[in-house]
Amino acid sequence: MRAAVLKQARELVCEDRAIPSVGPGQVLVRVTCCGVCGSDVHYYQDGECGGNVVEAPLVLGHEFAGQVAAIGPGVRALQEGDRVAIEPGVACGQCSPCRAGRYNLCANMRFAGTPPIDGAYVEYVVYPEAFVYKLPEEMSDTLGAMIEPVACAVHATQRGAVALGQRVAILGAGPIGLLTAIAAQERGAEIALISEPIPERRRMAQSIGVTNVLDGRSANLAQLIDGDQPQVVIDCAGDQTTPQQAIDLVAPGGKVVIVGFARGAGVPIDFGLAIRNEIDILPMYRFCHNHGEALHVLRRRRDDVARLITHHFTMDELTDAFELVGAYRDGVVKAMIDVASA
Amino acid sequence: MRAAVLKQARELVCEDRAIPSVGPGQVLVRVTCCGVCGSDVHYYQDGECGGNVVEAPLVLGHEFAGQVAAIGPGVRALQEGDRVAIEPGVACGQCSPCRAGRYNLCANMRFAGTPPIDGAYVEYVVYPEAFVYKLPEEMSDTLGAMIEPVACAVHATQRGAVALGQRVAILGAGPIGLLTAIAAQERGAEIALISEPIPERRRMAQSIGVTNVLDGRSANLAQLIDGDQPQVVIDCAGDQTTPQQAIDLVAPGGKVVIVGFARGAGVPIDFGLAIRNEIDILPMYRFCHNHGEALHVLRRRRDDVARLITHHFTMDELTDAFELVGAYRDGVVKAMIDVASA
Amino acid sequence: MRAAVLKQARELVCEDRAIPSVGPGQVLVRVTCCGVCGSDVHYYQDGECGGNVVEAPLVLGHEFAGQVAAIGPGVRALQEGDRVAIEPGVACGQCSPCRAGRYNLCANMRFAGTPPIDGAYVEYVVYPEAFVYKLPEEMSDTLGAMIEPVACAVHATQRGAVALGQRVAILGAGPIGLLTAIAAQERGAEIALISEPIPERRRMAQSIGVTNVLDGRSANLAQLIDGDQPQVVIDCAGDQTTPQQAIDLVAPGGKVVIVGFARGAGVPIDFGLAIRNEIDILPMYRFCHNHGEALHVLRRRRDDVARLITHHFTMDELTDAFELVGAYRDGVVKAMIDVASA
Amino acid sequence: MRAAVLKQARELVCEDRAIPSVGPGQVLVRVTCCGVCGSDVHYYQDGECGGNVVEAPLVLGHEFAGQVAAIGPGVRALQEGDRVAIEPGVACGQCSPCRAGRYNLCANMRFAGTPPIDGAYVEYVVYPEAFVYKLPEEMSDTLGAMIEPVACAVHATQRGAVALGQRVAILGAGPIGLLTAIAAQERGAEIALISEPIPERRRMAQSIGVTNVLDGRSANLAQLIDGDQPQVVIDCAGDQTTPQQAIDLVAPGGKVVIVGFARGAGVPIDFGLAIRNEIDILPMYRFCHNHGEALHVLRRRRDDVARLITHHFTMDELTDAFELVGAYRDGVVKAMIDVASA
Repeated sequence: MRAAVLKQARELVCEDRAIPSVGPGQVLVRVTCCGVCGSDVHYYQDGECGGNVVEAPLVLGHEFAGQVAAIGPGVRALQEGDRVAIEPGVACGQCSPCRAGRYNLCANMRFAGTPPIDGAYVEYVVYPEAFVYKLPEEMSDTLGAMIEPVACAVHATQRGAVALGQRVAILGAGPIGLLTAIAAQERGAEIALISEPIPERRRMAQSIGVTNVLDGRSANLAQLIDGDQPQVVIDCAGDQTTPQQAIDLVAPGGKVVIVGFARGAGVPIDFGLAIRNEIDILPMYRFCHNHGEALHVLRRRRDDVARLITHHFTMDELTDAFELVGAYRDGVVKAMIDVASA
Repeated sequence: MRAAVLKQARELVCEDRAIPSVGPGQVLVRVTCCGVCGSDVHYYQDGECGGNVVEAPLVLGHEFAGQVAAIGPGVRALQEGDRVAIEPGVACGQCSPCRAGRYNLCANMRFAGTPPIDGAYVEYVVYPEAFVYKLPEEMSDTLGAMIEPVACAVHATQRGAVALGQRVAILGAGPIGLLTAIAAQERGAEIALISEPIPERRRMAQSIGVTNVLDGRSANLAQLIDGDQPQVVIDCAGDQTTPQQAIDLVAPGGKVVIVGFARGAGVPIDFGLAIRNEIDILPMYRFCHNHGEALHVLRRRRDDVARLITHHFTMDELTDAFELVGAYRDGVVKAMIDVASA
Repeated sequence: MRAAVLKQARELVCEDRAIPSVGPGQVLVRVTCCGVCGSDVHYYQDGECGGNVVEAPLVLGHEFAGQVAAIGPGVRALQEGDRVAIEPGVACGQCSPCRAGRYNLCANMRFAGTPPIDGAYVEYVVYPEAFVYKLPEEMSDTLGAMIEPVACAVHATQRGAVALGQRVAILGAGPIGLLTAIAAQERGAEIALISEPIPERRRMAQSIGVTNVLDGRSANLAQLIDGDQPQVVIDCAGDQTTPQQAIDLVAPGGKVVIVGFARGAGVPIDFGLAIRNEIDILPMYRFCHNHGEALHVLRRRRDDVARLITHHFTMDELTDAFELVGAYRDGVVKAMIDVASA
Repeated sequence: MRAAVLKQARELVCEDRAIPSVGPGQVLVRVTCCGVCGSDVHYYQDGECGGNVVEAPLVLGHEFAGQVAAIGPGVRALQEGDRVAIEPGVACGQCSPCRAGRYNLCANMRFAGTPPIDGAYVEYVVYPEAFVYKLPEEMSDTLGAMIEPVACAVHATQRGAVALGQRVAILGAGPIGLLTAIAAQERGAEIALISEPIPERRRMAQSIGVTNVLDGRSANLAQLIDGDQPQVVIDCAGDQTTPQQAIDLVAPGGKVVIVGFARGAGVPIDFGLAIRNEIDILPMYRFCHNHGEALHVLRRRRDDVARLITHHFTMDELTDAFELVGAYRDGVVKAMIDVASA
């Protein structure tokens, strides 16, 4: 089978590999499509991301869907031909974080496309049944591949305990920012503001029903809000200034969720206001038991999520996709690799 | 009656004022003693603290106990002669934070010794009955005056959800750091480490049953821990480096409580690890419905709390007390003003 | 002014009373409409409800809206002429439940239409500003009067921690059952089932977008569910059998919220399954800081809530309204008293 | 090896079985001692317990400690000769309750001594490493075997969110009631009352530092409390009347934890007060990630827990032990089977 292998930064080659065999409780999935995440681009450009370094050839890709090609002994809920989306991180289920219900912090996590675990820019993968989700008939594979970023977005809203009737502000309208706004709406919140510098992304934000969309770089956002301060601010921008902007913006007793993070030197935080207002600052990591909720959001907001997929590429064009996403060019939000069509 | 009035920074004068009259549901308290808080010293030295500025003559002091001198109509649970401790911040009970059970964030808070509300370095104060707590027979007034910092310590452990069998690290062994360690012990936690630069305070930390006490300035504390990483780290130091030290030290999925905060420029935070480990960063402010618990801690740890009161002063010596505490001199932990003995 | 006064069970007389005067921080409201709650009917029929006994003449009614007729000194956010809805229970803000953020359990609660506090079947009432909510321009008074039962419904979903993507079952489709279904939908849940014996109410349940509506009396509801067991079951029926039905129906680890309760002898509960599945059984009482969320639901689901108001009466017809609601006649869901039109 | 096998109710025979072999990640444990739980007695007497029926020969016993006899490949933290306690229920780690952090509700749970999984009245057992806990040097095997009921007790206090300074009442002073009192004390709570009909158990309750111990059968317990109502009542009695007693006793907004449960017909609950006071009724099942905390309690309260082990038996005397415990004879609290000494 064909696999796109990252040998080192900016060296991506196509290799032929053996189709993996399927063991007990496992499912062989023929990958049909796999989205491009910002982390894929970082690995491609820099050979590392968030402290994880590519030290051996690695297949990237973790936002994917496909079709069940074979099932191993003991698999009960799936059968050959089922169209499925995959939860890309396999947790051990026995370490302390797993037992505590926070398996995204699993000490033995094996996460697709994160060194040293191969990902899904490849024709076939094998996964334990419990991490494979059957797609509803009417849901396309490309929409199914969005289950992963949607699960992240749902997790972000959970960390912030976004609730009915609350006001929520989102900093950054990339794929995760936009999906987080959608997830917050589905929890019954009102989006008080989305701040985003790129015009095409601001238009995208408006298209999901958000009125107050603006370029809030370096602004005092509290002055740009119409109505009360938001109870939750979710920083999906990952900029040097956005965490403090979020703290300044959120209502007393509110929560700031940190989704993206700035690279390089430390982000300066003035804890004075955060203390006086007892603001919870809640970094969030990936997702944790959120794929059922993500499917629910995908069903209810199909068109809004589909609209985020702005570009399609074949496997041969994978580096083009990485370049496009890395440059924020052409109004790209989510680029999808049609793995099966290569 | 005599009142110690701060006219402006470093200008403290003794004035004669009228004894306040007591209204319905109110209690007139003759103050017997009042502790010196770090914030009192800041107001005295700088004319401001944490953004609050002394713009008119102000009586400082908010850690106090006394004796009921008179009760207003409708007061039921107290009577003249009762020895009492006071919760110094009177919340409105009707604003949104009050209704949500977070009255320390009350939009209309009137907090003793915080501009523009007068405090307790004065012979008599008037408080609503609900904020006045009867002291047990066997508890001295000076110990009773410790109810306020103990309530802060209890609140810090609540913010961190410190629980049975957890390991907790404390950065800074001033009065709040030491009391927070005591409160954490009373919740069934084990103190994994106390980090403190001043030798006398380290000895004080050992005296409350903590084994691992050290000067951890600029250290990688994780290497100085014997056993697993703590689930909760409480930063009572308020230094430029301690918040990041806390994030580096705490276990995945853990909580960092920010009690003290650095003045001046922003504190640099590297959110990378905080995200990967989903560390809650939880600034905390004062206390909220914690005086019952604080009394409980005072009863159970009487000797350990009493030992923290290292110095006594009369009202005439108030500036001496401020100078001592401000200079961290003579092994001072808590200085107590014997208001009634002036 | 005119007031409908309950002298004793089934004796309702119209009296002339003085218009109350408005004090500092208070608002005089001319009542325009007031809904009929099941508890009003119980007081009317039996002279008592839920342990509260009518021992002196009492004005009933607590689901009401009106117009500001005058404001007292210090009122800032409201002015004469504003159309408003009222939160009918005035909590003290200082007792232990109030401080803990559970003011529906206030030890000194003064709740309209609950002995000995007069309610709103009267031309004018006086309320503290903090309990009076300005209605949006486009919202009618009758819809505004629904804020109270909607707040109860929101509180029921909060007790059950109803969340995005969950499945929720509702037992009983009276006003509270239907509004609870609406509130659960607004929190992002899917209604797995509504069980209700009265055909008109089942039709009403379908009209709010619920597919699986049935008469589930004495049934094994788990067999009537299409799909997984619900994570939350909310018992709005208050029947001898529904609490156990709810326990049998809910998924392991789920929550059963008890809104209505059976009168007479104890309800038999078999704790075996509740233990094996660790089912939280969560009785709920009124509402607590839910009027903001209720307004949000009213704005988003205006038509669905308005449809619940099936009957209108004048003040002169108040006993007719009580009889109708008490008999569940003519497909009544919510009867509204047009107080101002008498 | 020798195994005590329950063929059917009251038919317990000693059989010779093959020592199990140890696989990857597994540990072979030579059992040294195993406590008698009430459920063991029910299985022995009735052939069933809590809905689980003995349909094939079964080895009972799930409260046990022992010594590592061999380790499988990949075992890292344990070695031959280590003295250990065992968590008897092996959860799958992948089903929905497991992922949600509630693995006591695992859909695929394999729990020792619960049909059809064999337990620990046997010379050797095999367990995955993650469920085997090394005992501290100074802790005896018999104390180590108490880790299981202590973990249940800790879980009960967690369900009730027992916290510093709270008042807690315990109904029933059998092993779980007494250990729950100890766990509550370790969380910083004060035991307001223990109610227990058997005099020897009341004395045992006093010996762990509880003052207010009484026989409260059919009593209005609120009248027998000195001081405020408890915030948490934990029903470890499992009687027809104790759940309602608990609801009547607990403070408004409080929690009732249901640990034991009555057999036979439904327990009558009057939900009126439970609604008016919004009492959470929280059944609890076994334990969930509590063995670390249990070890902590065992270390701190060694003597108090050891005192609960009132009787010792050899494997040959197992039926005698069951008869004794089943009859509540001779002041028995916990009977321990010295498996290795047979």
